[in-house]
Amino acid sequence: MEPELTNTLPQDTICAVSTAPGRGGIAVIRVSGPEAIGITDRIFRTPGGKPLAKARPNTAHYGTITDETGHTLDDIVATLFVAPHSFTGENTVELSCHGSIYIQQQIIALLLRQGCRLATPGEFTRRAFTNGKLDLSQAEAIADLIASTSAASHRLAIRQMRGGFSRELARLREQLLTFVSLVELELDFSEEEVEFADRQKLTDLAQEIEHVIKRLADSFSLGNAIKNGVPTAIIGETNAGKSTLLNRLVKEERALVSDIHGTTRDVIEDTIILQGITFRFIDTAGIRETHDTIESMGIERTFQKLDQATIVIWLIDATHAPQEIEALSAKILPRCHSKHLIVAFNKADKIDDATRQQLTRLYDHLTHKMTNTSHIFISASHNQNIDVLEALLTQTVNLPQTDDNDIIVTNARHYEALMHAHNAIQRTLDGLQSNLSGDFLAQDIRECMHYLGEITGQISTDEILGTIFSKFCIGK
Amino acid sequence: MEPELTNTLPQDTICAVSTAPGRGGIAVIRVSGPEAIGITDRIFRTPGGKPLAKARPNTAHYGTITDETGHTLDDIVATLFVAPHSFTGENTVELSCHGSIYIQQQIIALLLRQGCRLATPGEFTRRAFTNGKLDLSQAEAIADLIASTSAASHRLAIRQMRGGFSRELARLREQLLTFVSLVELELDFSEEEVEFADRQKLTDLAQEIEHVIKRLADSFSLGNAIKNGVPTAIIGETNAGKSTLLNRLVKEERALVSDIHGTTRDVIEDTIILQGITFRFIDTAGIRETHDTIESMGIERTFQKLDQATIVIWLIDATHAPQEIEALSAKILPRCHSKHLIVAFNKADKIDDATRQQLTRLYDHLTHKMTNTSHIFISASHNQNIDVLEALLTQTVNLPQTDDNDIIVTNARHYEALMHAHNAIQRTLDGLQSNLSGDFLAQDIRECMHYLGEITGQISTDEILGTIFSKFCIGK
Repeated sequence: MEPELTNTLPQDTICAVSTAPGRGGIAVIRVSGPEAIGITDRIFRTPGGKPLAKARPNTAHYGTITDETGHTLDDIVATLFVAPHSFTGENTVELSCHGSIYIQQQIIALLLRQGCRLATPGEFTRRAFTNGKLDLSQAEAIADLIASTSAASHRLAIRQMRGGFSRELARLREQLLTFVSLVELELDFSEEEVEFADRQKLTDLAQEIEHVIKRLADSFSLGNAIKNGVPTAIIGETNAGKSTLLNRLVKEERALVSDIHGTTRDVIEDTIILQGITFRFIDTAGIRETHDTIESMGIERTFQKLDQATIVIWLIDATHAPQEIEALSAKILPRCHSKHLIVAFNKADKIDDATRQQLTRLYDHLTHKMTNTSHIFISASHNQNIDVLEALLTQTVNLPQTDDNDIIVTNARHYEALMHAHNAIQRTLDGLQSNLSGDFLAQDIRECMHYLGEITGQISTDEILGTIFSKFCIGK
Repeated sequence: MEPELTNTLPQDTICAVSTAPGRGGIAVIRVSGPEAIGITDRIFRTPGGKPLAKARPNTAHYGTITDETGHTLDDIVATLFVAPHSFTGENTVELSCHGSIYIQQQIIALLLRQGCRLATPGEFTRRAFTNGKLDLSQAEAIADLIASTSAASHRLAIRQMRGGFSRELARLREQLLTFVSLVELELDFSEEEVEFADRQKLTDLAQEIEHVIKRLADSFSLGNAIKNGVPTAIIGETNAGKSTLLNRLVKEERALVSDIHGTTRDVIEDTIILQGITFRFIDTAGIRETHDTIESMGIERTFQKLDQATIVIWLIDATHAPQEIEALSAKILPRCHSKHLIVAFNKADKIDDATRQQLTRLYDHLTHKMTNTSHIFISASHNQNIDVLEALLTQTVNLPQTDDNDIIVTNARHYEALMHAHNAIQRTLDGLQSNLSGDFLAQDIRECMHYLGEITGQISTDEILGTIFSKFCIGK
C-alpha cells in the first residue's frame, strides 16, 4: 500500500489574534485546543456566572475578562464552538474584545500565562487539516483567499477552498485505483499468464487519465496569471509615451478602487485590475536605434523580457515616419507570435485622418500573417481611448469559466506535483505500448497516485506542511 | 423641569468593518438596525437553509455569502444578536469572514446594495447611547479604551466604561435634586414666607456637593496625565547628554514592549511607558550661556516649556565645575517649585568619589528649601543607573488607587462641564450666605445639574454628539 504519514494530533491549546494587526473597533482572539474552554472559563465570567463548559455549542456570551490579580481587562463577547464542529475541529473559543492594541496584548499574555501557546502562522488551518476538516489543497486555498485582491483570483480560491479541485483529484485517484487493481490482480496470478485486464481498455483508461492531468497542468499558466497577474509588457521607442500610458492606466485604476473607509488595498506598483483581472506590467527599457554596443545590450534585454509577457502592447508614436515603424517591426513582431499583441498608436490627437488610414494599412500589412493582434489609436497624455485600450486588454484574457467543473490550477506546488504525475502516467502508457510487465506498470501508476496525493495532503511530510503553513498569517 | 433633547431613533440599518483595517486571518463586519436580520438573510445561507430570522438570539451560524449573481463571496460565521440584547440595542448581525481586503470590500458593497448604509465613525456606539445602553461618559470611555496604550489609561477607561463615573454623577444629581426640591417647595409657598429648608442644612449640603465636584475636577490633572502622558522635561546644557538619555529611555522601553506577533504598538515619538504610566517628553533646546539676543530668546522659550512639565529632569554634566552648576540653578530651580525635580548628574563614570560627594553636598545646598526633589548619578552613554532613574520617575507619579470608588476624570469635555457646575454650586453657596431668594438659588442649582447632565448625556445636542462620535473609528 502507499505510505501514509500520520500527523500526531496536537495536545496543546493555542491562541492568537486572528483579525488584522493594529487598532480597530473590535479584535478577535481565537483559542483552540483541548483546554480552550477550560482556560477561557478561568479568565472569563458572564453576568450570570454560568461557565462556557455548560453552555450550548455555537452560542455567544457577553462577559468580563479578569486577570489573576482581579483587574478587569475588558468586557467581551465569547463565542463557543465545540469539537468537531469548529473550524479547527477542536474545541474553540473566539474572544471578541475591544480593538485596543493594549487589550489585545494583555489578553494574549493572560492566555499564555493560563497555559495557552501562541499559535504559529497558519496553525489553526493546519489543525483543521490534521483533524480532517480540510484537505491540503483546501487549506492552501484559504491562504490564497486571504491574499486575493481581484475578483478572478478570489473566485479561483473560493472554488479550491470549497473542494472543487479536491473532487477532481479524488476522481482521478479512483480511476487510477481501478487501473492498478486490475494490473495487480494479474500479478497474483502471474504464473498462470492470465490477462484479466484487456490491454486496449487499460490503454484507453491511461489515456483518459493522462488527458485530465495534462488539462489540469496546462491550466496553471492561466491560473498563475490570474493569481499573480497577467504579465504584460509595454514596448516602444524611448519617446513613444510609455510611462505616460502606464501612469494613466495605473491612475485610472486607483481612482476606481472603491474607497470604503476602513479598507485599504495594498497597492502593488505597476499592477492594475480591470474587470477583476490583474495585469502585471513588466518593466522594459525604451528602444532606441543605436550603434553603441552597451546600449544595444540593454535593448536586447528588453526584447528578452518580452518572452515573459503574455500580452505585448507595442506603443508607437503615430507622428513618426512609417519607415521607422516598419524597421522596428522586424525586431518586435517575430517575438510576439505566441502572444497577444496590441499595437497602440499614441499621440493620435496630433495626426490627420489620412495618416490614420495610412497607419492602419501599415498595421494590416505588418500583421496579416499573425493571429491574436489588434490595433488602436490613443492619446495617453490626453486620456483618449484609454478605456477602449483597457477593454482590449480584458478581451485578450479568457476569464475562467464560472462553471464549477472547470478546475484551474493556481498553485506552483500543485503544478509541480501534476507534472510528476503526468510523467508517471506517460511512462505507464509507454509501458503498455511496449508490453511492459504488470509489476513495472503498477509501480508507475502508484507513483502517479503518490504525486496526486501530495496535492491533497494524503501524502505529506512535516517539511511540506511546514513550508505551506509558514506562509499563512498568524491567527489563521 | 430641565430640558431633555430627544434623540430620534434611527430607522436605517448600518454596516461597517469593525476590525482593524487591512488583511488578517478573519475580519468582522457588523450590521445593525431594524433590517439587519432581513438583509443578512437575503445574502447568507446556512447549509440547512434555516434563516437567521428563525434562529435563537446569541447563536453563531456557519454559512455562505452569495451575491445577486449567484457568486459565492465567502464562507463565514454569522452571529445573531436580537434587540435589545446587543451592543447597539438593535438587531445586530456580526459577519466573521476571511480577512482578505477584497472580501471585506465585496461584502460591504453587497450590504450597501441590499439597503444598508455605511456607518459613520462611532455610529454603533452612538446608537448604543441613543438606545439607552450606555450613557455618554460610558460611550466616550469606549473610544478611550480603544486608544489606551498603557495599563493606567486602560484601567481608567474600563472603570469609566463600566459606569463608575456615571454612578458618582448620578449620586451628585440626586443630592442636587433633593436640594432644589426643598428650595422650590418654598417658592410654592412664597407668599407665606415659610422656610421649609433649614438654611444651615442647605449650606452643608451645597458644601458637600461643592467638595465632590471640586475633587472630580481636580482629578483631571492626574487623569489627563495618565491618558495623555505625564509631561516630562529633560533640561540641561547643550552638552549634558540630553538626547543620549532620551534615546536610552525610549530604547529601553521599546525593548521591553512585548513583541507578541500580530500586535504592534503605535510608537509615539519620545513617549515611554514605565510600570503602566506614560511619560511624554517635552522637546526642549539645550541651555547655553550666551550674550546673543536671538539665542537668549530660544533659551527663554525652553524655560517657558518647563511650565508645561510635571516632572523636570535637570541633566548636569558631572564633570563640570560646581560654580557653573550653581549659576544655572538660579535660572532653573525657581521654575521647579510646584514640580517634581530630579537632578541627574550624568557622565558619573568619569568622576571620583570626592567629586561625587561634593556634588551631593551642592545638591543638598541648592534644594534644601524645596520639596519633591531627588538626585541621582547616572551615565547615559554607559547605561549606568538608568533603571534607578526610571524607578524615580514612576515614584514621582501617584498611581490612581485601584479602589473603584476613586473616580478620576480623564476627559477635557467632562472637566469643562465640571468647572461650569462648580461655578454654579459656588454661586449657590454665595447666594445662601447673602440670603439670596429661593428662585435665584434654584436657578443656580438647575444650572449645576444641567452641566452634570451634559457629561452623562442626559442633556445633549446633535452638535455635542457629532463632535464626540466623530473621534471614534469606523465600525465601533
